[in-house]
Amino acid sequence: MNQQPTRSPPVFYCPTLAAKQATAEIVGDEANHGIRSRRLRIGDPVSLTNGRGLMTDGRVTSIDAKAGVFVAALDAGVLTVPARRRFVLASALPKGDRQSTMLDMATQLGMDCFIPLDCEHSAVRYQEKMTDRWRRVVESACKQSRRSWFPVIDGPGSPLTVLENFRQDTVVLYGDHRAINRCEGSHLIQDTTRTIALMAGPEGGFSPQEIAMLEAASFAHGVAIGGHVLRTETAAVALLAHATSYV
Amino acid sequence: MNQQPTRSPPVFYCPTLAAKQATAEIVGDEANHGIRSRRLRIGDPVSLTNGRGLMTDGRVTSIDAKAGVFVAALDAGVLTVPARRRFVLASALPKGDRQSTMLDMATQLGMDCFIPLDCEHSAVRYQEKMTDRWRRVVESACKQSRRSWFPVIDGPGSPLTVLENFRQDTVVLYGDHRAINRCEGSHLIQDTTRTIALMAGPEGGFSPQEIAMLEAASFAHGVAIGGHVLRTETAAVALLAHATSYV
Repeated sequence: MNQQPTRSPPVFYCPTLAAKQATAEIVGDEANHGIRSRRLRIGDPVSLTNGRGLMTDGRVTSIDAKAGVFVAALDAGVLTVPARRRFVLASALPKGDRQSTMLDMATQLGMDCFIPLDCEHSAVRYQEKMTDRWRRVVESACKQSRRSWFPVIDGPGSPLTVLENFRQDTVVLYGDHRAINRCEGSHLIQDTTRTIALMAGPEGGFSPQEIAMLEAASFAHGVAIGGHVLRTETAAVALLAHATSYV
Repeated sequence: MNQQPTRSPPVFYCPTLAAKQATAEIVGDEANHGIRSRRLRIGDPVSLTNGRGLMTDGRVTSIDAKAGVFVAALDAGVLTVPARRRFVLASALPKGDRQSTMLDMATQLGMDCFIPLDCEHSAVRYQEKMTDRWRRVVESACKQSRRSWFPVIDGPGSPLTVLENFRQDTVVLYGDHRAINRCEGSHLIQDTTRTIALMAGPEGGFSPQEIAMLEAASFAHGVAIGGHVLRTETAAVALLAHATSYV
């Protein structure tokens, strides 16, 4: 833990949190995490979010370690963070732990929605049980980075079905090492107020058919990242870092 | 492993590799990795690099699994990759595995030199034994991303000593969530041919004294990344992704 005295209070997820509420009860895993790992004491400052734009500060007023519950008195002001431009990450799946690394970093950087991409060259295929682990990772990253909008995890799709769902109201940037203009993306991002979708292929890259389909979509643009071969999660994080730096 | 038929041959580190060489002998851990993990067979294509700009292709001509040695006949052309603009990452240390994640991604993105930063708010302090693990991580990332220049790992320093070593021949971009202009960095990077150094503070951020010192250096510029609180390794990777996208 960082010893900085001005450190912000820890964030807890409280799905029932609403504006104009005087107290909030934190229960279950979330409460146990606060009581056991964070060692909360009465009087400690906490931040609460409902994961849908509300964030508020408060202080712990009671703790029931046995029942796994704590209560916080809330400050008068509940901060509502308006939803901003949306960033969607549609990425092929790296192996094992690298999935968590990717979603952790992407969430910190501002990803609002994740779509697992099933590509022709995908080495790892989506399985339903992955979603639960991903939810825990993005929730934890949100609390860590004090985000009050939690990212949504969508069902899987092929590049074609995902691209068809985006249609014209989205600017799509996909990683393509052959793309000539590296800066291209920045202008596209700066000039739009629409949803921005980042697409990262598997380690073998998008297939020729997938690239042809991406190139045919007028709202999709290939961007080269770095000068070397990138792992999927590095490409995904780099695309997001690039896109969100122009918010 | 990706099943793409056009996959490039695996890269092996051969420190003795020189131009105009007809064969090369791979020994030790590197050979054992090829023989056991990669299951190399006679005739298999391989790529070799000396980590200092030489990269060449060849084919396995003999394997001695017991001695842990294999020999490759090299193609006539040895590719020399000229050193380009340098990217230095000077970053506070995240905890445990996050150090490897950071160095792995940073190497893929084009980091040429890593300097562990000892900041006032650093939660993790540099220890000499870390360097060996880091070397293995960056070497493995280089082979993965087919880089022929291996990054250098420098000794640790405080932001002050590191900044003094950079002096005027470097453009320094440091992560600062209070920085107003998010795009600022890109113009600084596009307009220079000099070394670019990225500085990422610890989770508690740079201290007021450190920020004052950074602000006083005419060649150092604060850049905001994303809209949220970032872990050190995410900030470091995002800074590098941003900087290297303009190579």
